[in-house]
Amino acid sequence: MTAPCSPHPFDTDTAFDTVAPGKFASNLSSGWNNNTGHPNGGYVLAVCLRSLLATVPMPHPRAVAASYVRSTESGPASIETDLVHTGRRVATAEGRLVQHGIERLRVIAQFGDLHNTGEPTLASDDPPDLPPPEHCVDLVAGAPIPLVTFTDNVEYRYPEMPGWRTGKPSGVTTSKFWTRFKEHRPADSLGLTCLVDAGAAPVMEIGAAGSATIALSVYLWREAGPEWLAYRAVTRHIIGGYHDEDVEIWDCDGRLLAEAHKFALIRPSPHPTKERGPTLEGQ
Amino acid sequence: MTAPCSPHPFDTDTAFDTVAPGKFASNLSSGWNNNTGHPNGGYVLAVCLRSLLATVPMPHPRAVAASYVRSTESGPASIETDLVHTGRRVATAEGRLVQHGIERLRVIAQFGDLHNTGEPTLASDDPPDLPPPEHCVDLVAGAPIPLVTFTDNVEYRYPEMPGWRTGKPSGVTTSKFWTRFKEHRPADSLGLTCLVDAGAAPVMEIGAAGSATIALSVYLWREAGPEWLAYRAVTRHIIGGYHDEDVEIWDCDGRLLAEAHKFALIRPSPHPTKERGPTLEGQ
Repeated sequence: MTAPCSPHPFDTDTAFDTVAPGKFASNLSSGWNNNTGHPNGGYVLAVCLRSLLATVPMPHPRAVAASYVRSTESGPASIETDLVHTGRRVATAEGRLVQHGIERLRVIAQFGDLHNTGEPTLASDDPPDLPPPEHCVDLVAGAPIPLVTFTDNVEYRYPEMPGWRTGKPSGVTTSKFWTRFKEHRPADSLGLTCLVDAGAAPVMEIGAAGSATIALSVYLWREAGPEWLAYRAVTRHIIGGYHDEDVEIWDCDGRLLAEAHKFALIRPSPHPTKERGPTLEGQ
Repeated sequence: MTAPCSPHPFDTDTAFDTVAPGKFASNLSSGWNNNTGHPNGGYVLAVCLRSLLATVPMPHPRAVAASYVRSTESGPASIETDLVHTGRRVATAEGRLVQHGIERLRVIAQFGDLHNTGEPTLASDDPPDLPPPEHCVDLVAGAPIPLVTFTDNVEYRYPEMPGWRTGKPSGVTTSKFWTRFKEHRPADSLGLTCLVDAGAAPVMEIGAAGSATIALSVYLWREAGPEWLAYRAVTRHIIGGYHDEDVEIWDCDGRLLAEAHKFALIRPSPHPTKERGPTLEGQ
């Protein structure tokens, strides 16, 4: 696995100081904002998990359940952790990320060891069918996305410019693209917990302004290096203003690295579109 | 929604006494055991959620994340709950189920209101294709499954007897059947959190003895009455002895009621099979 030459922003922006056993101080960077202008949920999760990794005697997160209680802002954050249980193969710990005395994120996660995972016994799903990254379009392509700073640190290559970006939502709640950290930072397990939340919500393809994640589960299967990763997100159900979302990240050899599942609230657009297919009218 | 004439075992077996604010006493019944001889995880989750429902000002669980820290046994259990946050539409609370002074299950969940949910804005997935229940076979059919008592309270109708039951695993890690509580108990949201974990693990179709759930997420979309419910579970990935599993429960009109996602550990069979397709050799 190739190590970057100097600390990547992801590493400096998730760093922490130990204040006391189970008490950590960190600082949420403004370099990982999504289109709400607030820090992206995956980045905030990684900040919390990094303190948790200092709490548990296992090297990697394996299953993570995050509850987004309130939105975060860039600036100081404290993280409190509790080791719940340590078994032979799995340790469980809980973390709470607090800003201005108010809890923002609660995480309970299982940790284990992803070294020497071996080949899958079963892999009955295929990675997304994508043209090579060099035949894809750069999502940013010189035109910053309003309020978004995440793209300063993470690259995206889409088969074609997505509808939400061109003002013509496709009506199809699937999103497929290549992604990677800039500057050749590897996609280790902590990085993957950030990247699973790095895609624009598929509900933006039916006219939503975005999505507010309420609950996020991440399962980690394997780490990867700095190469392009294939990302797929699908929303299958929208009911009463809430939606589900399933995410997978695969390496360029077609091996599953991580999967995630979300329960989230639609953020309606102030300017509903009149595209064909499902729309958010009535939400 | 039809109410049962007398309390159903599910209701008596999830009942609790309030000991103090946020402290509850319950008793895990031996009537909901799976094939390990221990209480089924979905039943234990429902016990914990029922105390949580007494803690939050919302009527229904919407998103539930359960961490199975240690196995449970039938007998007394205490539940401690904390209200994390109450918003306008969503409340978040945490529960810890303890037996003999040792934490067994930790749950963090979001609660809301499933009344007047309305029709889906998007439903891009179909319920499982199943023959009518009266053309299906009864999983139990007079022959109890060793150690399993769950089937005393919940009924199952399969298109054909599943391979794990006949000693001839199919090699296909998908499970589809009809299910319902016996005695016409409705599938309310609490009942659904039990039923999403009520199916034999699809990995039993490739020779596993069973599965030990480590992390379970449940999303609740709609409640149902006492009618037959269509259940589908799929395992797509098995890597290094762990597997994923996606579960859906649909009503008989084809409306999604609940979905669940699991990260779990394979329990290998002491007598591996030699069927075609993926097997657990090498686990």
